[in-house]
Amino acid sequence: MLTQEGCLARRRRLWNALPESVDWVLVADPRHVQYLAGFWVQPLSFSGGERGLLLLERSGRASLLADNFTVRSAVHTPFVDREVVDGWYDHKHSVINRDHSLLRALEKVAPELQGRTGLVESEWLPFAAAGVLKLDLAAATLHTIPTSGANGSAGISLGTLLRELRRRKEPDEMDLLRQCIRAGVAGQAALREIVRPGISELDVYVEIEKVVLLAAGRPGLVYGDFRATTPKNIKAGGLPTAHILQHGDLFILDYSVVLDGYRGDFTNTLAVGTPTDPQIMLYDLCKAGLEAGERTLKAGVLARDVHAAVFKPYDDAGYGHAFQHHAGHGIGLAHPEPPILVPQSEDVLVAGDVVTLEPGAYVEGIGGMRFEHNYLITETGAERLSSHDISLT
Amino acid sequence: MLTQEGCLARRRRLWNALPESVDWVLVADPRHVQYLAGFWVQPLSFSGGERGLLLLERSGRASLLADNFTVRSAVHTPFVDREVVDGWYDHKHSVINRDHSLLRALEKVAPELQGRTGLVESEWLPFAAAGVLKLDLAAATLHTIPTSGANGSAGISLGTLLRELRRRKEPDEMDLLRQCIRAGVAGQAALREIVRPGISELDVYVEIEKVVLLAAGRPGLVYGDFRATTPKNIKAGGLPTAHILQHGDLFILDYSVVLDGYRGDFTNTLAVGTPTDPQIMLYDLCKAGLEAGERTLKAGVLARDVHAAVFKPYDDAGYGHAFQHHAGHGIGLAHPEPPILVPQSEDVLVAGDVVTLEPGAYVEGIGGMRFEHNYLITETGAERLSSHDISLT
Repeated sequence: MLTQEGCLARRRRLWNALPESVDWVLVADPRHVQYLAGFWVQPLSFSGGERGLLLLERSGRASLLADNFTVRSAVHTPFVDREVVDGWYDHKHSVINRDHSLLRALEKVAPELQGRTGLVESEWLPFAAAGVLKLDLAAATLHTIPTSGANGSAGISLGTLLRELRRRKEPDEMDLLRQCIRAGVAGQAALREIVRPGISELDVYVEIEKVVLLAAGRPGLVYGDFRATTPKNIKAGGLPTAHILQHGDLFILDYSVVLDGYRGDFTNTLAVGTPTDPQIMLYDLCKAGLEAGERTLKAGVLARDVHAAVFKPYDDAGYGHAFQHHAGHGIGLAHPEPPILVPQSEDVLVAGDVVTLEPGAYVEGIGGMRFEHNYLITETGAERLSSHDISLT
Repeated sequence: MLTQEGCLARRRRLWNALPESVDWVLVADPRHVQYLAGFWVQPLSFSGGERGLLLLERSGRASLLADNFTVRSAVHTPFVDREVVDGWYDHKHSVINRDHSLLRALEKVAPELQGRTGLVESEWLPFAAAGVLKLDLAAATLHTIPTSGANGSAGISLGTLLRELRRRKEPDEMDLLRQCIRAGVAGQAALREIVRPGISELDVYVEIEKVVLLAAGRPGLVYGDFRATTPKNIKAGGLPTAHILQHGDLFILDYSVVLDGYRGDFTNTLAVGTPTDPQIMLYDLCKAGLEAGERTLKAGVLARDVHAAVFKPYDDAGYGHAFQHHAGHGIGLAHPEPPILVPQSEDVLVAGDVVTLEPGAYVEGIGGMRFEHNYLITETGAERLSSHDISLT
């Protein structure tokens, strides 16, 4: 779980990044409410998809706004100074629109915010909440966001600013990511026992999920690519199907274990049966790309240069056409996150980034495969976080 | 999956419920985008938590607005006339704020909406989207929502209206709910083989999840109460813990299998070992409450009368204190939904409601238990949808 210390550190960094005129911020993306206050609605609950709002004030005070059932569906107790809760459902009276309960919680604090300069996360704050706060759309400056250009120029986008801050992981975030990764590694190890001709992709998924959740010690979401590629269908991706594994297939396990919104993301590909020589040749290219990329990882390096390093072994061998997707990306609370490791990236690696490297190869008549590790970027290089075997067998 | 026929029927019902002056509606709650267009972002994907917007026009045209990665993470192809997609990520250029891509998709259709009367789902539409559409907050009438009172009186709340429409399930929704329920019944049957002294609640969860997903034939979310009550801890609820089951515990499996956002919700409680006489006495009360409630179910019946019928056997036996939560509620895309089966409910059952009945009993020194079935309300009575055994052993 996130810690109070971590949440306070992230809030300090947010305030340091804001203009002095801003006296309060209203955070609305559920990922950012988690990031700054440790409030995460359990997606595996009857409240999955419901939301709270986080009000932060320059004085340091943090307030969580929510309905009573959403508060009670939090994965952990949030790190806030007060919970402003509207009593939605009491098992005595009928109810219909839970969203209005969230707005009533906001109504309770609205008078406190009048006449003070605030910044709202307009990408997620419901329009109705702007009505409660009497935000003036026409006069809006701070809370407008650019709708052209990805990074914004007019005004401040709280959502973009928070995404920038998210890159430098705090220690509590690293603890959580390591838990996700440890569980994922257990699943990769189990894959070797599970994959065999005659079972379906879905069979593999349910076995892996079981291993992973027991390793995590609690329920969580398990998603990713659980698919067999064949010499004819080289780009299979996504959740498992009823496809029955056969000799000659390549099973790609490229997946994430999500705990409290955070996730790892790493891959191995296993040959069903004995890999062919052309499959081993592609594997060697992927491994060379992974190792070459790994050697570049360090704060200050251009993301495009990481991509170039991963790509070079393919290109040198005349197999550039076999590897056309990104070389990797940042991970944390969403996917993909910056830095984006692509040919025309404008990103630069920073210490605290957690990134994936995921070279793959997809060639008609041979099959598709991908291999991936996760790394923490440091000032001097990178720490590899995932420890599964990269191997076709 | 939902069908085109079903989506069109639901849209027709929506238009019939709207004032004639409304020429377009912008739907923003992900559950309602699914309800009306069959667009559901796979929560078990890297796009989990991302959103699309649905624009419906009185002419009949339906448009889905989203970024390219969210569209591609849909569980099924949506039933719309056009997809207005912003190209967010191309594996070549760096990106940061995916929400801005959604806004750029909206920007493409904004000129079409100027000068026409529309209604937006202000509980979910991001404030930034209101900026793109140049909605006038001060002059807003149709898109304001009441922030006092649950059901609204000032203006129209699209969110509330849609929740009212959701009560009458269409055939495609019933098909989907039956799939969820079938998978859940398989899990309840397996519970008898799984529950035994010495294994943890988490062990039970992972085994049940495996059975359920294989029965469903695809990944989905599995949530609910997977907890043992003991004579001392009679109200355990929520996801499983490391608690090791012991002779004398009562294991409550009150859970939902979620497919494409829809879910069943039903319960059985199993005694770990042989139930005691007081446990059997409580079970008899629950069963009597369930059967009494079942006999009342029919369109036109007051929700509070259903509660009263379920409660009566407890009250008659002097055990009213043992059963203090709701007698049940509607299910579908959220939980709880109307009709709410509680003492002071203002709801009336309608044909097409899918409801649960879930009497329980919680007594210090004996333990906690709950039993639950799901029903489709009809003009003449109710069809029981769940078929698991209600039994302590």
